[in-house]
Amino acid sequence: MTNEECMQRAIELSEQNIKDGGGPFAAVIVKDGQIIAEGANRVTAENDPTAHAEVTAIRNAAKKLGTFHLDGCQIFTSCEPCPMCLGASYWAHISKIYYGNSREDARNIGFDDAFIYEEIPLPREQRSIPMENLLHEQAQKCFKLWLTKPDKATY
Amino acid sequence: MTNEECMQRAIELSEQNIKDGGGPFAAVIVKDGQIIAEGANRVTAENDPTAHAEVTAIRNAAKKLGTFHLDGCQIFTSCEPCPMCLGASYWAHISKIYYGNSREDARNIGFDDAFIYEEIPLPREQRSIPMENLLHEQAQKCFKLWLTKPDKATY
Repeated sequence: MTNEECMQRAIELSEQNIKDGGGPFAAVIVKDGQIIAEGANRVTAENDPTAHAEVTAIRNAAKKLGTFHLDGCQIFTSCEPCPMCLGASYWAHISKIYYGNSREDARNIGFDDAFIYEEIPLPREQRSIPMENLLHEQAQKCFKLWLTKPDKATY
Repeated sequence: MTNEECMQRAIELSEQNIKDGGGPFAAVIVKDGQIIAEGANRVTAENDPTAHAEVTAIRNAAKKLGTFHLDGCQIFTSCEPCPMCLGASYWAHISKIYYGNSREDARNIGFDDAFIYEEIPLPREQRSIPMENLLHEQAQKCFKLWLTKPDKATY
């Protein structure tokens, strides 16, 4: 499949998802020129604030391939990933991101992507969600336990 | 439960999760002083790059409460959320974040949180994952369809 055909599929899925009661977002994961997984935004349909198109597509692709690293895979998403989905793409080792609409387009139809992009780089004390450090010493014990574990699976 | 007790529970879960083959991270969601959901990092254990502690706890809490907005809920996480999990916290309308270890602590034991925090605010063309815009006009059609939908569920 060409890149345009992969994006066309993501856009078609996003339109279908509106009809199915979801948000106007969908994504496909491609490996070696073939779509291996799809996902659509099911936040309101399934009461899952993390069920964005890209997160869902990444989860489906990882499950299908039986791995937590999607090296060599591209994501085609009908809209630029929000910070949650961009973070998921980094953790999944996605090799390239193709997007249709932009984060500014998302803001224009009422989604908070651009606002969250502004919040993420702020110092903790300047964010709109307050953050507080608690029990740092006890928390460190767990990290030390991790460091001494001989057979740990890393990512 | 006190804030310290809630954090203590998250730290205990993170230690248990290491023994259960997961990563050294766990989180609990609290409403009205009671833990309503828990989550631990199952990335390598379940081949899901998005299965961080906070994402998992948020999904569990939303499922339990039957809503995609966790207003009035606090998250207690054994380690400061990565950008994916911080983004999830914004989407979920979490009211406050308590964290044990910091993102710098996470980097010190080999996790990429700090690197991803550096990448998110960069202009698209400067990120390590390349990004490309494709079929913008077709993608816009879906957003216009969304705007004209009378009974849409927004978040």
